[in-house]
Amino acid sequence: MSSTANSPSENNSTAVNDTSWLGDSAAIAMLTFAVDTETPVLAAGRRHAENAMAMSHQAFDARRGLPRLLNILDEFDLKATFFVPGISAERWPEAITDIAERGHDIAHHSYSHRPSTELTAAEERQEFEMGLEALARLDIRPSGYRAPMWCATWRSAELAAEFGLTYDTSLMDDDRPYVIETNHGPLVELPPHWSMDDWEQYAYLPEPHLGYNIEEPEKALAVWTAELDGMREFGGLFQLTAHSFLSGRAGRARNLRTMIELILDRGDVAFKTGAELAEAVLADPNADRRKQEPVVVDPAIYKKW
Amino acid sequence: MSSTANSPSENNSTAVNDTSWLGDSAAIAMLTFAVDTETPVLAAGRRHAENAMAMSHQAFDARRGLPRLLNILDEFDLKATFFVPGISAERWPEAITDIAERGHDIAHHSYSHRPSTELTAAEERQEFEMGLEALARLDIRPSGYRAPMWCATWRSAELAAEFGLTYDTSLMDDDRPYVIETNHGPLVELPPHWSMDDWEQYAYLPEPHLGYNIEEPEKALAVWTAELDGMREFGGLFQLTAHSFLSGRAGRARNLRTMIELILDRGDVAFKTGAELAEAVLADPNADRRKQEPVVVDPAIYKKW
Amino acid sequence: MSSTANSPSENNSTAVNDTSWLGDSAAIAMLTFAVDTETPVLAAGRRHAENAMAMSHQAFDARRGLPRLLNILDEFDLKATFFVPGISAERWPEAITDIAERGHDIAHHSYSHRPSTELTAAEERQEFEMGLEALARLDIRPSGYRAPMWCATWRSAELAAEFGLTYDTSLMDDDRPYVIETNHGPLVELPPHWSMDDWEQYAYLPEPHLGYNIEEPEKALAVWTAELDGMREFGGLFQLTAHSFLSGRAGRARNLRTMIELILDRGDVAFKTGAELAEAVLADPNADRRKQEPVVVDPAIYKKW
Amino acid sequence: MSSTANSPSENNSTAVNDTSWLGDSAAIAMLTFAVDTETPVLAAGRRHAENAMAMSHQAFDARRGLPRLLNILDEFDLKATFFVPGISAERWPEAITDIAERGHDIAHHSYSHRPSTELTAAEERQEFEMGLEALARLDIRPSGYRAPMWCATWRSAELAAEFGLTYDTSLMDDDRPYVIETNHGPLVELPPHWSMDDWEQYAYLPEPHLGYNIEEPEKALAVWTAELDGMREFGGLFQLTAHSFLSGRAGRARNLRTMIELILDRGDVAFKTGAELAEAVLADPNADRRKQEPVVVDPAIYKKW
Repeated sequence: MSSTANSPSENNSTAVNDTSWLGDSAAIAMLTFAVDTETPVLAAGRRHAENAMAMSHQAFDARRGLPRLLNILDEFDLKATFFVPGISAERWPEAITDIAERGHDIAHHSYSHRPSTELTAAEERQEFEMGLEALARLDIRPSGYRAPMWCATWRSAELAAEFGLTYDTSLMDDDRPYVIETNHGPLVELPPHWSMDDWEQYAYLPEPHLGYNIEEPEKALAVWTAELDGMREFGGLFQLTAHSFLSGRAGRARNLRTMIELILDRGDVAFKTGAELAEAVLADPNADRRKQEPVVVDPAIYKKW
Repeated sequence: MSSTANSPSENNSTAVNDTSWLGDSAAIAMLTFAVDTETPVLAAGRRHAENAMAMSHQAFDARRGLPRLLNILDEFDLKATFFVPGISAERWPEAITDIAERGHDIAHHSYSHRPSTELTAAEERQEFEMGLEALARLDIRPSGYRAPMWCATWRSAELAAEFGLTYDTSLMDDDRPYVIETNHGPLVELPPHWSMDDWEQYAYLPEPHLGYNIEEPEKALAVWTAELDGMREFGGLFQLTAHSFLSGRAGRARNLRTMIELILDRGDVAFKTGAELAEAVLADPNADRRKQEPVVVDPAIYKKW
Repeated sequence: MSSTANSPSENNSTAVNDTSWLGDSAAIAMLTFAVDTETPVLAAGRRHAENAMAMSHQAFDARRGLPRLLNILDEFDLKATFFVPGISAERWPEAITDIAERGHDIAHHSYSHRPSTELTAAEERQEFEMGLEALARLDIRPSGYRAPMWCATWRSAELAAEFGLTYDTSLMDDDRPYVIETNHGPLVELPPHWSMDDWEQYAYLPEPHLGYNIEEPEKALAVWTAELDGMREFGGLFQLTAHSFLSGRAGRARNLRTMIELILDRGDVAFKTGAELAEAVLADPNADRRKQEPVVVDPAIYKKW
Repeated sequence: MSSTANSPSENNSTAVNDTSWLGDSAAIAMLTFAVDTETPVLAAGRRHAENAMAMSHQAFDARRGLPRLLNILDEFDLKATFFVPGISAERWPEAITDIAERGHDIAHHSYSHRPSTELTAAEERQEFEMGLEALARLDIRPSGYRAPMWCATWRSAELAAEFGLTYDTSLMDDDRPYVIETNHGPLVELPPHWSMDDWEQYAYLPEPHLGYNIEEPEKALAVWTAELDGMREFGGLFQLTAHSFLSGRAGRARNLRTMIELILDRGDVAFKTGAELAEAVLADPNADRRKQEPVVVDPAIYKKW
């Protein structure tokens, strides 16, 4: 496998705080919300459409969770980034339009929230086409892309660039933004991570199984704050991923407000939307620029498919 | 899917604290107890009837947990709402009669605790018939309904109304009560949520698998208190769901007492039973009134059954 | 199912603190240790005998964990109750003899630690015969019984009485001791519960899968202490179940010492072994006396086997 | 099974603090890092090579996590022990060379990270050959061995000695080092344990499933510190196992720094690499010396394969 040998990049970036995407901040905070509504449950099996509780569990998203979170953002006059599957836009047009009208950044999040890794190439392309069409019908032109469940394929970044999006937020090989040189031009990668997500702390649904844990908001805050302070030390991107059907619940919405206050209190962290940050990264001559190199595997070693 | 498009309701209810179901309280607390006894274990497979430990684990419910919790409620002179499967009434008639004699609200909770989503329409109807008959033999006329495991179908609310019940507590698309306009008249929905449940914090049984976690009572208290204070801010229903076979354990029963004291100490939360709250919601001209719209799915997109 | 209707017992025992099994204590503490060594892993599949790590993970029990815990008990001059599978006695005779020589109570814990619920009647009987023979070869006559994984059948109590044991500790329908009237005479039940066990807090082994969590000792202490104080309020049995391969680890052994100190500091809790407590219960005229009634299930309702 | 009877060793070592491998320290701390990169995900199935997110999740290891952790070690001028699969060396040669150039101890960690318990004898031997060759191409001669996922077979220690390695760190039957007398000479065992690992606290990846939990760093610190203080009391080896793709994340890297500071603050714990500690154990006349005795199972008892 020596032909695919890579080199680490930590050593390449000694002057972290001079990197212009950071400006004069110690770290950048990017608040992101997935407005998944019914899609992750339907992606687990369409029989779950017959489970009125599971469907109502997801409908809380647009009915109550999303408006509540939008109001909290308004309290701080903060702009965030919302990832909207096409089916969410079709089923809940007023809720999605409300996001746009409040001036937030909106990004493409597939049509159906099926993991791209389980789709054919044609199906993954269709997810872009149908998802973008659904947003277009609401006069929304998305700025970036996130793969459902972050399950990107090696095609995903190419598709995002081909469809005119400026950034992706699905890959976890860094905690600083970088540029992917695709065949359709540069695409900014804004790396997320599970440790800055609300799903692992809050998601519980036994059938379909979305998660096992219901943690207290204070614990979620401790996990996220540790990463925030880590990003402040190392000059990284603190990208919080919340789901409006999860963090829109009453106690958790208040916890998100506390998290925002905590970031503001640090005094050295700037908030940016995905679109704003992507623009800053593209303008940064020192940002890493990489080509994606799919991992090639020897089936004589890794026999298990 | 644009034909099923819905509109969010957060924006419709700006004057939350004037809503009459809340009265002059910041939030309503509704203490609910599922008296499941052996039923959730048998629903996982009737072979578990041969497991004397698993059966005894569930029998603790009526033998020890339920009376203990009833005594704690008496300490505060509080009335709560008890969800009783028909088989619990048949197997433990004295324990169930004791609930009624102490003046609590009793609700229908199926006959066998099998998830409705795994039953035919005829079987789901039979669960109503047999469950209500079992309660009737104890001279108990239930006020409302909760689906086992909250697994309601789109038929469930119709059945609850048809069988003369006034409320359901299985749907999670809101955290304020609302009215479902069924073909059999109005049915009040009193929305529950996993985050106000004791199962996720306390349930552990490896075979059949009921859960993985045994959390300390302080953590359960932190999860529930976060939601309580959230409901106080947003004007919602804090519906605590406890299971007498879980929260009836000694340390957890004391924790429930602490939770009650904590709610009382807030000073702006009123306790109501399901029957009392349903009556207040029906009398509230500003309560949301909705028709259920089953989710229709495109099998060309969601291919997995 | 009305023919098997049972009555709750909480109301029968108003004068808890006069019950003689309690003496003048608020609660009884019974420290129990399962010395499972390799058996739970082999019971999950004999292929795991080829996994040297898994076998060594279990051998820690007799090599290091058990002697360490015995030393801690000696610090307090406390006698505890040890549950020993026959195969543990065969594989680690010196370690098991050491328990007896230090004066502790030893109880039968099957021969192979296979769950009784997965065995035929003949196999379950054989487990008693072979397990008792293995202990007899070390001149150990056990006082009581615990089913592996607490998975008792309706035969288990009968077998325990038939084989001359005076107590069982596998059933969870109470948190006070009671007497089971078997066909072979009275058998004292000393009820355990998952919430007073170390397995749920500490067990982690991916293959075979023993558990998912590694909690900090402070959390285990909080879970156990809540139950201890609950038993002190309600007059119950605080039966701590530790596994020497788990609680014998260095930090956890220290935590067990802290738990013992915490019980002693309460000042109103007496320590008893299983044999001592069984004797007190048999001498208590007010102790509950029950016959086991196997649960009978209607296969037309619970169709799933 | 009496022919394989073993004797416990806790009683053999009364004078713990005189044991020379400990020197005059209360405990030894050994910081170890697995540099697994893509290998554990590929070992779960080569289809995951097509999941760009999962591959990037693992590439974070060499790109960012490893350099960050190396820098933290440099802050304290501490030498640690790094376990490197051959494929990591092939895919990320500069990152692995950097470890060696900074003067750390490097150990063999298989070629592909497939669990040895799922391999044939020929395949397990091939893993040694190919893994050592990959390191040799970077002019690295490893000092010791750790089985992937710690899943050692009874062949593993023999192979480690045959291939000239001086220690293994895969077996959990003790918390003090000991010597395995293999057919190829003595091999020092430096026992690890799940409770001193970062995987159980931090690993989360749904597909392939690497783990379920994302705990706050403070909780990981509490789990590890309990073991550290236990080792200080009982005279043991505190072997911290971190994974650079997990503990290299920003907040967790800071937590590792805190852990190092905490160990230093104890004042009675010496840091050693695997190579240094193995040398001390070999020179210790009082160190336990054992032959491995594979566990022999009666298939008439343990029928399940």
